[in-house]
Amino acid sequence: MSQLLDPRDAYGTLRTDLGYAYRGVFAAEEIAEAVEAARELLEPRATIATFLPVLVARQAREQLMAKAQAEGRVAKKVPEILFVCVHNAGRSQMAAALAEHLSARRVHVRSAGSKPTGEINPVVVEALAERGIALSAAYPKPLTDSVVQAADVVITMGCGDSCPYYPGKIYEDWQVKDPAGQPLAVVRDIRDDLQNRVTELLRRVLD
Amino acid sequence: MSQLLDPRDAYGTLRTDLGYAYRGVFAAEEIAEAVEAARELLEPRATIATFLPVLVARQAREQLMAKAQAEGRVAKKVPEILFVCVHNAGRSQMAAALAEHLSARRVHVRSAGSKPTGEINPVVVEALAERGIALSAAYPKPLTDSVVQAADVVITMGCGDSCPYYPGKIYEDWQVKDPAGQPLAVVRDIRDDLQNRVTELLRRVLD
Repeated sequence: MSQLLDPRDAYGTLRTDLGYAYRGVFAAEEIAEAVEAARELLEPRATIATFLPVLVARQAREQLMAKAQAEGRVAKKVPEILFVCVHNAGRSQMAAALAEHLSARRVHVRSAGSKPTGEINPVVVEALAERGIALSAAYPKPLTDSVVQAADVVITMGCGDSCPYYPGKIYEDWQVKDPAGQPLAVVRDIRDDLQNRVTELLRRVLD
Repeated sequence: MSQLLDPRDAYGTLRTDLGYAYRGVFAAEEIAEAVEAARELLEPRATIATFLPVLVARQAREQLMAKAQAEGRVAKKVPEILFVCVHNAGRSQMAAALAEHLSARRVHVRSAGSKPTGEINPVVVEALAERGIALSAAYPKPLTDSVVQAADVVITMGCGDSCPYYPGKIYEDWQVKDPAGQPLAVVRDIRDDLQNRVTELLRRVLD
């Protein structure tokens, strides 16, 4: 790339853009805090500088939307479903992608980890690609108060005592095998187990 | 990849999944037609076999949603904006990505080309990445009746007589320079021109 912009310029522009997108919803300081939190989360894990502004923008946007929903500053148009596991690298990413795939935009889906670490499991990416589902540019994300409070349905998998529990939401803990370190054949079974569970969940939430 | 699935299996599964997602909206034959049309569009341009089911699934999903909206089979939750140019490789892709970035989910955006050809202009990808906007896995898409009829707002750029015109929608033709073959500095100016236009459009559509 011949003229890589100074990332500080990119973030100044991002603050302006998000300020426009959330005009009347968030003040400039709240926007700046969200961008800064996204930078702190993502800069240490960035491997390709070019993509960093894209990841920071997406994370900041998602957190602002969750916060706006959690605080009742914007109306939810569809039910919000949150999938949580420990690392947000396997099960919760798969479940969220399947729910998106199967819901025809009648729900909005998020995922997060109680201890987000590492990269998305490549075997998970492969098993989902076989079903026509992309996990492009997904990355492990932390479980913030906003994403939990914005959710109408919280599904936890394997995070034990660090899984969130909030009364008043649809809340379930799913016993699903961890795909970490498993070969493709096993991950396919986990994918199909998750698809059955997601299908049944969507039926309950939507029908 | 050790065990690449037969694509016919992937498409059988996709038909089943979309049949679930659109239960009560589309019959099995309509789903099968959408999957077949997406295959015919995308197979000739596929370079990496693994990604083909992902692209086919996305294209079929988008066309089914557009058709469901166009025929009044599902309610629109937010205004639908369609950007059209000739190849769907530059201007309309940029405008759609900017509108998505700036709208905080208060609109849904599509883009299409009157003669979709080639790949997304890589300089366009770079100019958007600087603003924190991803064009990952975007590809030129045809202007189908469904996407036009599903739209509340249609913006055309440079397609002349082959641009669609339907009375009863917000309809505008924008005079925006073509980024094809232009260096990054020029594409940045085009991006900023489009951002101003999109910002002003969103204000009118939403405020």
